[in-house]
Amino acid sequence: MESGKKTHDLPTSVQLDLQTGVFEPCAMHVTRKVSDLSMMFYDTESVEKLVKKGDPVVYDIRHQNFITRNSDMALGVTVVQPGKVGDEYHMTKGHFHEREDRPEIYFCVQGEGYLLMETNNGDFKVEFWRPGTITHIPGNYAHRVVNTGDKPLYFFASFNVSAGHLYKPVIENGFSKIVVEREGETVIIANPRRK
Amino acid sequence: MESGKKTHDLPTSVQLDLQTGVFEPCAMHVTRKVSDLSMMFYDTESVEKLVKKGDPVVYDIRHQNFITRNSDMALGVTVVQPGKVGDEYHMTKGHFHEREDRPEIYFCVQGEGYLLMETNNGDFKVEFWRPGTITHIPGNYAHRVVNTGDKPLYFFASFNVSAGHLYKPVIENGFSKIVVEREGETVIIANPRRK
Repeated sequence: MESGKKTHDLPTSVQLDLQTGVFEPCAMHVTRKVSDLSMMFYDTESVEKLVKKGDPVVYDIRHQNFITRNSDMALGVTVVQPGKVGDEYHMTKGHFHEREDRPEIYFCVQGEGYLLMETNNGDFKVEFWRPGTITHIPGNYAHRVVNTGDKPLYFFASFNVSAGHLYKPVIENGFSKIVVEREGETVIIANPRRK
Repeated sequence: MESGKKTHDLPTSVQLDLQTGVFEPCAMHVTRKVSDLSMMFYDTESVEKLVKKGDPVVYDIRHQNFITRNSDMALGVTVVQPGKVGDEYHMTKGHFHEREDRPEIYFCVQGEGYLLMETNNGDFKVEFWRPGTITHIPGNYAHRVVNTGDKPLYFFASFNVSAGHLYKPVIENGFSKIVVEREGETVIIANPRRK
């Protein structure tokens, strides 16, 4: 993700709409559709069908970096739409940080789902998320959010900009587990993309 | 404030009650009563009266530090009760950071009031706060939250533990402005404690 190079030497506020998860003013807004996550969902046939049928939005990220003499922090809010690709629930791409000593704090404000976290060594942890769940993610854990509910899930994030975003290992390997609906139940299973 | 020396190498979650601003589990909980802020409110007679009449709670801080090889971050939630000391609204002590390059992000989840911010050079900024206001505070700005509403105001905070807390200049000098009720209106006036 591109970083904001604007300086913010003065205190700066944004106003978050607590109903929708949209905040303003916002320097950076990225929308990810099913086609942007075609490497992520295991069911490639369903990906193709959905892309042809209008390529629905999976999630929106809004964030704001503060890079000044007196700061290296960023805030963001991500809204994950409800839905599935095949039987796999909507989710964020997920990423590692480039710097393992730069953690992140996520705060689920609305919705219901899971936060998947995993290290390079295969340590895996999942947290069930509901409104008010706040998770500290150590800098060595990749993190992905899955919306298993029937309304938008959104979460607030804060981190140091110097953390960096590393998507490649997740694009290549996915997470070791995925979240799917099977026979009406939400289940966490081994990722079929991994041999 | 004492720092938490526990390590949190694994992802760790807390559950915030969005109605009350209380989260669990919580390693550190501090309650500040009127007597703890006797150096802060300008109306010392009203302070004495209130302390004799039960010493009401002004605010509660809950926070959690994550100090590991892979983290230097902390989260906290502060609940400021509604009320006044004389005509001055309930507020937090306020503090500088020991390190000017360590900012903080505050997220007002509930309630209504003001965030006062000020540098050593006398640069002052105030933000009106309502639910959903998120403010980035550069590391060189002292910060204090004032509850001007009729219900508890609470906010989520995230910062790097290495920021440190510096209370002395605020105890000695206060902020240059204070928030009071005059003739039924909320007004921001020069601090009478400052010469």
